[in-house]
Amino acid sequence: MSTVKPNNDAEHFKRVRIVLVNTSHPGNIGGAARAMKNMGLVSLYLVAPKKFPDPEANWRAAGGEDLLDSVVVVDTLDEAIADCKLVIGTSARERRIPWPLLTPKECADQAVAESQVHDVAFVFGREDRGLTNEELHKCNAHVHIPANPAYSALNLATAVQVLCYEFRMSALAYERGGPVHFDDWDQPPADNKALEAYYEHLRQTLEALSFLEPGNPRQTMTRLRRLYNRIRLDDMELSILRGILTATNNYIYHTDNKIEALEKELASLRQQSDQKS
Amino acid sequence: MSTVKPNNDAEHFKRVRIVLVNTSHPGNIGGAARAMKNMGLVSLYLVAPKKFPDPEANWRAAGGEDLLDSVVVVDTLDEAIADCKLVIGTSARERRIPWPLLTPKECADQAVAESQVHDVAFVFGREDRGLTNEELHKCNAHVHIPANPAYSALNLATAVQVLCYEFRMSALAYERGGPVHFDDWDQPPADNKALEAYYEHLRQTLEALSFLEPGNPRQTMTRLRRLYNRIRLDDMELSILRGILTATNNYIYHTDNKIEALEKELASLRQQSDQKS
Repeated sequence: MSTVKPNNDAEHFKRVRIVLVNTSHPGNIGGAARAMKNMGLVSLYLVAPKKFPDPEANWRAAGGEDLLDSVVVVDTLDEAIADCKLVIGTSARERRIPWPLLTPKECADQAVAESQVHDVAFVFGREDRGLTNEELHKCNAHVHIPANPAYSALNLATAVQVLCYEFRMSALAYERGGPVHFDDWDQPPADNKALEAYYEHLRQTLEALSFLEPGNPRQTMTRLRRLYNRIRLDDMELSILRGILTATNNYIYHTDNKIEALEKELASLRQQSDQKS
Repeated sequence: MSTVKPNNDAEHFKRVRIVLVNTSHPGNIGGAARAMKNMGLVSLYLVAPKKFPDPEANWRAAGGEDLLDSVVVVDTLDEAIADCKLVIGTSARERRIPWPLLTPKECADQAVAESQVHDVAFVFGREDRGLTNEELHKCNAHVHIPANPAYSALNLATAVQVLCYEFRMSALAYERGGPVHFDDWDQPPADNKALEAYYEHLRQTLEALSFLEPGNPRQTMTRLRRLYNRIRLDDMELSILRGILTATNNYIYHTDNKIEALEKELASLRQQSDQKS
């Protein structure tokens, strides 16, 4: 099309990865690869696929086999998104605790804008059950394809097709100087690995303060995850928050030591005065 | 999705028909039916299909078999579009005589607008050769899916999926009188007074932890303000954050008291033992 000047060497086509979690049918992996290739995306991650590599994946990939050759297979979602700074998970259901929810178009515009500067992940769940809540809570935002409620069972490769298509449309609009909204910032955003480390530090600290009972911290930690995931923390903000936790832990440590020391001293003095009398 | 109110009884979902010309593989007919069902379209026309009905069509249709039961099979494209007042043909190639060429989005918007009042057809050609020039010249406009030039061979069912998806997005936006957008949340946003109280509580706590020197907390507090102001905290999130500060302050208060008490006791014991000796 004369109005469209696709540029598949553009960074954004390389910087957006498709992450498929626990895929059961290799045919869907192939279908996803073909959809990506059709739309110009190149980076495919598989988290603990049930059957891969598999001839059916290559067959379904049609012209997209090269994406299967360069696929990255990992054991956990954390590994697949560790270096990503925008993670968007596909969600079919409404959540008890609603997360920021994007339309496919909003998701694509955001991904195009941010993939100019850092890596972005679109995360897809299992054919039957989608993503777990724990997996969805690792995402900055969720995207929902508003299918026909009477039959909303989108095939996995179809869902990948729809988001890759929207991404391509936004990317082409961006290359034509189309509208894209992205605010400059003084600090780079924190990556997912650093965020996970913060959540663990936070949980330990809140337990040390007996704010969380080690038993069921779930709801509260989920709300805190939603809070900090949607804020898109930058590196300096994250280091301030880590610093506050460290200061808290140091305080706990030093006062505990001091109390222990005082109690020891007290005990030995009592002993001495008992012996004297 | 509570924000999306799809209305598949709306005229436009009934008035837009998908026309497949000379389809070779029954699997693609089934795939097209599933894509239509997913997106809420109901009217499928087949022009001289090579193999239909066929078990593979039903198998690929998954939940969309009902569309296959009500499918209309005709011999010529003319019959399939006779009563339509807007006919849009899919075109992969640029034409010697350029026709009005729409993007999928433009095609969907036009179809939604016109299907309020009359019938609309999206026409798809053969898997291998698409539509003939003669067939394309029966169309009011052409639509092109700008796929990756390096691999633009869209599967027929995929092309149907993309146009039905765009149609659904435009239809939902039309029904809502606006674009699909997320705006509901489970908690009301915190008001400014509550936020200011939080910042003060936070500042005092960070000074008690000697994380901030009472002298110049400026930079850090400013960054923390920016962080929590841009997140748009809701009431429950704010009460969790206040709860953490309260737990921290309680810890500081109790340990300080305990240390003070221990030191008193120690001092008096020392006095007593001095008097005895």
